[in-house]
Amino acid sequence: MSKFYGVGVGPGDPELITLKAVNLIKNAKYIFSPKSRDNSMAQNIVKDYLKGKEIIELEFPMGKDNAERYMNAAKLAEEKLKSGDIVFITLGDPMTYSTYIYLLRELEKLNIETETVPGISSFTAAASRINQPLAIKNENIYICDSVPEKDVLEKCETVCILKCNKNKSEIIDLLEEYGFNYYFIKRVSGAEELVLTEKDEIVKEDDYMSIIIGRKN
Amino acid sequence: MSKFYGVGVGPGDPELITLKAVNLIKNAKYIFSPKSRDNSMAQNIVKDYLKGKEIIELEFPMGKDNAERYMNAAKLAEEKLKSGDIVFITLGDPMTYSTYIYLLRELEKLNIETETVPGISSFTAAASRINQPLAIKNENIYICDSVPEKDVLEKCETVCILKCNKNKSEIIDLLEEYGFNYYFIKRVSGAEELVLTEKDEIVKEDDYMSIIIGRKN
Repeated sequence: MSKFYGVGVGPGDPELITLKAVNLIKNAKYIFSPKSRDNSMAQNIVKDYLKGKEIIELEFPMGKDNAERYMNAAKLAEEKLKSGDIVFITLGDPMTYSTYIYLLRELEKLNIETETVPGISSFTAAASRINQPLAIKNENIYICDSVPEKDVLEKCETVCILKCNKNKSEIIDLLEEYGFNYYFIKRVSGAEELVLTEKDEIVKEDDYMSIIIGRKN
Repeated sequence: MSKFYGVGVGPGDPELITLKAVNLIKNAKYIFSPKSRDNSMAQNIVKDYLKGKEIIELEFPMGKDNAERYMNAAKLAEEKLKSGDIVFITLGDPMTYSTYIYLLRELEKLNIETETVPGISSFTAAASRINQPLAIKNENIYICDSVPEKDVLEKCETVCILKCNKNKSEIIDLLEEYGFNYYFIKRVSGAEELVLTEKDEIVKEDDYMSIIIGRKN
């Protein structure tokens, strides 16, 4: 019986992929790859394992209602699963702000058997990169993808703002107000990785694959 | 020049380790392994790569002031680095509620060059296991290791309570009050993995390697 795997391939460094992801990709007949700004990155991470596979690129344009596209992708998966396993590759972790989640919901409606395989999230890799803890004992972590909530900043020692290319000035002002040190990490672990800690430099950057990590004390 | 690597080995499944972790362990001369309840798990994950290495077990008893032990471990690392690389293995991710963070601070005091390598966190693996998102667009994630803060529960769509063997009844009451569905995941991805969704069953469990994930709607 063939299966649909949603597989995280990590943040960018081809070594930051799990053995499980590599093995599933090697054994799959079909690779589903979301066609987007990040597409070349995800495919690039796994390029050594793609030989002989049918690669199916799926288009889910950002900021559009893709409901029908997800439904059609699920139907295509149903058809392809008759002849072999599918691995859907996703940058970072499939359960963390990923388009995979919308596709998963459609697959479930069709009663397709799915297994999700976690990947290294960008924020986890970024914390390691700057050698700062996400949390030690009794601390709270807050993860978001837009301007953080003040009530939450008050109660958390670490905040990670993902996909951070908008409102950076407002975000940094908030972090300063609530006593956070901050780090901007662009394309963590990849060839174009950049770490910044100065506000005036950070606000000049404009890349969707960026994170700000705030850390109290 | 030798280097000290703090390396996450993932949550339990030996396939949920990164290629980078495997390669660093294979090339290291020394493996530092915290001796604790989780010790056998971390060493078990990497057991295939340990041949010919000197394994140094470090004791950091839970709930005790280990400041001197961390300092001594850092001094031992300084000595051993004269003859080869050290990999400190840590279950899950080294920057997420790990003892590695305390050791890292001592290594930094001695100006020892360190590199931290992220691992799959238990909460990431648990979300994949239950096929529930940690977040979709515009949602907030809250991660903690004790009874969650009410103000934060109000503003977040997902909450992950790690190392959850205490106050489970109080935690579940709170999650119900704030409109969360909940899942209890013990030893995710390991041989003793268990997923529960009924309060009366969850409160009977008593294992430190457990997570509760709450998810609104």
